Amino acid sequence: MLSFASDYIEGAHPKILERLAETNFEIQPGYGDDAYCVSAREKLREACRCPDAEVYFLSGGTQTNRTVISAYLADVEGVVSPVTGHVNGHEGGAIESSGHKVLTLPMEDGTLDPAVLRTYLCDFYADAEGAVHMVQPGMVYVTHPTEYGTLYTLAQLEEIRSVCDEYGLPLFLDGARLGYGLASPGTDLTLPDIARLTDVFYVGGTKVGALLGEAVVFPHRAPKHFFTHMKQNGAVLAKGRVLGIQFDALFTDGLYLTIARHAVEQAEVIRKTLLEAGYRLHIDSPTNQVFVVLNGEQMRRLGERVVFTFWEKLDEDRFVIRLCTSWATRPEAVEELCGILRELAV
Amino acid sequence: MLSFASDYIEGAHPKILERLAETNFEIQPGYGDDAYCVSAREKLREACRCPDAEVYFLSGGTQTNRTVISAYLADVEGVVSPVTGHVNGHEGGAIESSGHKVLTLPMEDGTLDPAVLRTYLCDFYADAEGAVHMVQPGMVYVTHPTEYGTLYTLAQLEEIRSVCDEYGLPLFLDGARLGYGLASPGTDLTLPDIARLTDVFYVGGTKVGALLGEAVVFPHRAPKHFFTHMKQNGAVLAKGRVLGIQFDALFTDGLYLTIARHAVEQAEVIRKTLLEAGYRLHIDSPTNQVFVVLNGEQMRRLGERVVFTFWEKLDEDRFVIRLCTSWATRPEAVEELCGILRELAV
Amino acid sequence: MLSFASDYIEGAHPKILERLAETNFEIQPGYGDDAYCVSAREKLREACRCPDAEVYFLSGGTQTNRTVISAYLADVEGVVSPVTGHVNGHEGGAIESSGHKVLTLPMEDGTLDPAVLRTYLCDFYADAEGAVHMVQPGMVYVTHPTEYGTLYTLAQLEEIRSVCDEYGLPLFLDGARLGYGLASPGTDLTLPDIARLTDVFYVGGTKVGALLGEAVVFPHRAPKHFFTHMKQNGAVLAKGRVLGIQFDALFTDGLYLTIARHAVEQAEVIRKTLLEAGYRLHIDSPTNQVFVVLNGEQMRRLGERVVFTFWEKLDEDRFVIRLCTSWATRPEAVEELCGILRELAV
Amino acid sequence: MLSFASDYIEGAHPKILERLAETNFEIQPGYGDDAYCVSAREKLREACRCPDAEVYFLSGGTQTNRTVISAYLADVEGVVSPVTGHVNGHEGGAIESSGHKVLTLPMEDGTLDPAVLRTYLCDFYADAEGAVHMVQPGMVYVTHPTEYGTLYTLAQLEEIRSVCDEYGLPLFLDGARLGYGLASPGTDLTLPDIARLTDVFYVGGTKVGALLGEAVVFPHRAPKHFFTHMKQNGAVLAKGRVLGIQFDALFTDGLYLTIARHAVEQAEVIRKTLLEAGYRLHIDSPTNQVFVVLNGEQMRRLGERVVFTFWEKLDEDRFVIRLCTSWATRPEAVEELCGILRELAV
Repeated sequence: MLSFASDYIEGAHPKILERLAETNFEIQPGYGDDAYCVSAREKLREACRCPDAEVYFLSGGTQTNRTVISAYLADVEGVVSPVTGHVNGHEGGAIESSGHKVLTLPMEDGTLDPAVLRTYLCDFYADAEGAVHMVQPGMVYVTHPTEYGTLYTLAQLEEIRSVCDEYGLPLFLDGARLGYGLASPGTDLTLPDIARLTDVFYVGGTKVGALLGEAVVFPHRAPKHFFTHMKQNGAVLAKGRVLGIQFDALFTDGLYLTIARHAVEQAEVIRKTLLEAGYRLHIDSPTNQVFVVLNGEQMRRLGERVVFTFWEKLDEDRFVIRLCTSWATRPEAVEELCGILRELAV
Repeated sequence: MLSFASDYIEGAHPKILERLAETNFEIQPGYGDDAYCVSAREKLREACRCPDAEVYFLSGGTQTNRTVISAYLADVEGVVSPVTGHVNGHEGGAIESSGHKVLTLPMEDGTLDPAVLRTYLCDFYADAEGAVHMVQPGMVYVTHPTEYGTLYTLAQLEEIRSVCDEYGLPLFLDGARLGYGLASPGTDLTLPDIARLTDVFYVGGTKVGALLGEAVVFPHRAPKHFFTHMKQNGAVLAKGRVLGIQFDALFTDGLYLTIARHAVEQAEVIRKTLLEAGYRLHIDSPTNQVFVVLNGEQMRRLGERVVFTFWEKLDEDRFVIRLCTSWATRPEAVEELCGILRELAV
Repeated sequence: MLSFASDYIEGAHPKILERLAETNFEIQPGYGDDAYCVSAREKLREACRCPDAEVYFLSGGTQTNRTVISAYLADVEGVVSPVTGHVNGHEGGAIESSGHKVLTLPMEDGTLDPAVLRTYLCDFYADAEGAVHMVQPGMVYVTHPTEYGTLYTLAQLEEIRSVCDEYGLPLFLDGARLGYGLASPGTDLTLPDIARLTDVFYVGGTKVGALLGEAVVFPHRAPKHFFTHMKQNGAVLAKGRVLGIQFDALFTDGLYLTIARHAVEQAEVIRKTLLEAGYRLHIDSPTNQVFVVLNGEQMRRLGERVVFTFWEKLDEDRFVIRLCTSWATRPEAVEELCGILRELAV
Repeated sequence: MLSFASDYIEGAHPKILERLAETNFEIQPGYGDDAYCVSAREKLREACRCPDAEVYFLSGGTQTNRTVISAYLADVEGVVSPVTGHVNGHEGGAIESSGHKVLTLPMEDGTLDPAVLRTYLCDFYADAEGAVHMVQPGMVYVTHPTEYGTLYTLAQLEEIRSVCDEYGLPLFLDGARLGYGLASPGTDLTLPDIARLTDVFYVGGTKVGALLGEAVVFPHRAPKHFFTHMKQNGAVLAKGRVLGIQFDALFTDGLYLTIARHAVEQAEVIRKTLLEAGYRLHIDSPTNQVFVVLNGEQMRRLGERVVFTFWEKLDEDRFVIRLCTSWATRPEAVEELCGILRELAV
């Protein structure tokens, strides 16, 4: 059966497996001090145009969000996030478990409007007497692409940065699917822009061709004792090379962007087919995720031949589903899917 | 340069890399629901003779200890551990970070004497009035092999179990290096024994041939919501197959014990050489770790040709170092090391 | 200047100070084992018609909410609360600091609609696959009177209990201002009803005539090790008598309800005056809190002669303020206030 | 029956009750902004000779230790304490519950030897590679008087300060019984000395004549958001005046030292009697606590007429008990006790 369930349903890009095999018998120090972590860090610094960036490798998204956010926040501080932010709903309470509230703001298609952020902060500090009884805003968190597959523009991220500067708040960009954002044809936001505008962000590996791994980049400087903080959160691998080798491969000869672009192109084919066949896209995502509205009969019949993700129910007979491509999505599979979608459109 | 620094300085056993490559393009569900996790669970149940065991795969030792221990303990409970227990000193405060005290007991060569445990618990509950102001013992934690490479006997573990039963405490065995204990020639403690005598234990992969991974086994039943607890602790991999495939390979055709036995045999060669050459072993470990006493000159000269781990200073001119073998240690390297050790012994 | 700022701006009811003085030189054991705590517990059990209830005395509302909620919840569980619940916004993140998420539901005038609760729980468990990645509902929290001074009816609380039973969730009622709810003329919810319908609730002392103190009542049974849990949270007073003596006095000869009734009657006078003078009440609270809509000029002029609490801005020239009475509010002060309000109404 | 069980078994000094009554009907703002907190802060600043000190009032010792320590420590930091420190054993795991390890050092009669502290810190930082896997020392904690009723000398505290400066660590002095230390005839350590040498300390009220309350003094500056941190820890009283009035009374006309001196003098009488009668003092405490060695028969017979605290068993027939005086101890009661002790000495 065809599957467009997610971007983590295959293994790793073959180049990564190849490099793991080639280096397997080399003796290397543990805990991220190996030659491959060193090399991958250097390549990431170059890609970000940030020669002084500190780079750490962690295993997965929730682990990274938990570890980074709690490293920045004082006990009384919370992280400001759009209500749809991954940290708010889908991480089993990882942020609260580390002692911090997620301070949620309303969003538009998954993105945080800088004006909404500014109003919230302005109101919070205006009521000085009340504020001391409340959780203090301590960091701003955004995802790019967002949980809805939408993207920030350069202007929007600059404006969010500007609000953060006004209120002295660090800005964290969760890039679990960053590659697909950078590879989107319409985007004007580059990796060096992100490095310039945030205090910390991560380059997602797990969902962009690695077996596992997220590269956390601190363009200026990591919080004190960050390695120990990772250790405490169970986020240090003894064989740190496993992550170093993968990111070294992904950032050699532009592999990361190449495979992300492939996935986005396949998603574009699906979107084009859907629009031509008269479907309605629920959200206009320019990345590797496609959100389309189906009726119950269409959803049932599609489910017999394709694995997808149920997203939400709009009303009695309209449902949103998500179709997701990856570095490994074969064009023939996309063609087959498109045929089925055309058939069900009638 | 030769290195006997640790058992995590090479990659993975080639069979594991082979299986990762063979299965790479298969589409599998995420989060541990893939066919390989399912298969590996079944093989672990068989190896433990525990058909009803629940098995979960995590990434590393500190992560596993933190996640398992906090899943068992109520807020006011702590984990009882010998003072040398890995959770007490070398995990960056992971247990305390999850809200719990490590209640330390004196040890003998890294092992917890059941009599010491019983006396502690007996005294604690005898002072009912004082006890309510103190952290309540909520779990007993032992490592096997211990941090000193020593082993519990079957009789000792049975006795510890018996004390735990008297006081209604769950018993957790940290098996980060479990293979090397099971493969030790002198041991009378088997995997089924451990499954019979503990409430939870883990089979270490990272230090016994895997790229990463620890298999947590609950012989009876996992704590409620354990998967969500893993998620909250950042211990769930989206591509759970990465761990499933590795444990499936390690528990196919006895690979896990075969490679552990190889490492222990190489360590035996080193120990024999040391004793014959007149060195003193600091601790009599029957596993893949060798602890030997050197004088300053010997240590300095050895350090020019071999990477090892400094363990502790005994007095002005006597030092303990650790030499560690692994599944990947080549007999020729051991032979070379032994030659150097003989040379320095003079 | 007149002050109707809150119900904690005076000291304690004179009867309490009298009892503190009378018992001052008696030697009593510490930590809540004194004769007055014992006696107060017995009186509370009688008032609740719960002969087997366990009763503990804590110092304040946030401390009580934090201690009670975290004693019930497993690490992966959160507390379900209307979005206006005191634990959600005004306790400095005390719940999150103890590791738990506040799972917020929409409310109506501060109360939680049982139907909204049922729908939330039903939807949560319907998506079994998604649920394991999310915080598990572990307790339901309501306040009575609510933060808006409104009250649950007996039927509503019975229905909430019924939903809790369907989903196996404990129900916690925060009674920081409980007296004013019980003394409200229109209420059909009694103290024995509350004891029958909740798993735990507290009888607020600080805001109802005590210097400090909240009496936590577990009608059936407290969570294991609750005293140690209090200790860990810094919620045990060495001189526990300070709380025992106060609750013993408050629950002797019906003092608690008598002084609450006085406060509610004074608030009724204010409400009547406001309505007669043509003001609009923002929320129809039948307790000791009065929420009235003023224009900017009225608010400014009132502020010159009376201390009140600014509540919220409705639009450009309409503001809600709160006037609050207490056990100590003098009828002459209310009369003076009413005169001013009539004057400003013109 | 006579009781020398502790210094918290009576109520408050009558002057405190008097002031509570006199001020009872005054309207005052909540949360520590009342006129009495303001006045008490000023008097404490004067007593400490620290015109810029920040002063906060909390309810009890465990609450204060938990709140202060966690306000200073980053997630990966622990608090260094002598193994007998109150935070280590008798606070129900309050420090660990807030996420931090208590890093214990050996002690001598309850005091921390500055040389032991220096050696620990020196060794910790010497092993840079190992240190990053361990809890980082983040604060030094001492009690004065110690849990054994012993005192630091000025020279010792200066030396501890000096070690703290070398390693950039804040120093926290727990003064739950501070008055009895300051009032000890032999001490050369004054309140201004303590304010000069620590980063934060507290002046214990609960055990020195108040109903409840500890005054936390930050001679230089409190950690950012300390009030919100108190709130989060449930350590803010709505009627903050309750603490302000008490400390205002205690620091008017030297009442705090006067009542502490009384208690110490009564303890001196007991110590003198014991020595003259041939008893052995277990620890030579110059404060309000007396630690004496009894045989089993003596202990049993004393227990028939006097309440005391069992401290520890030395061997088969020798036991240490503690006798404790307070501001309220009557000389006649001491005389009676001394008679009994003389009688049992035969």
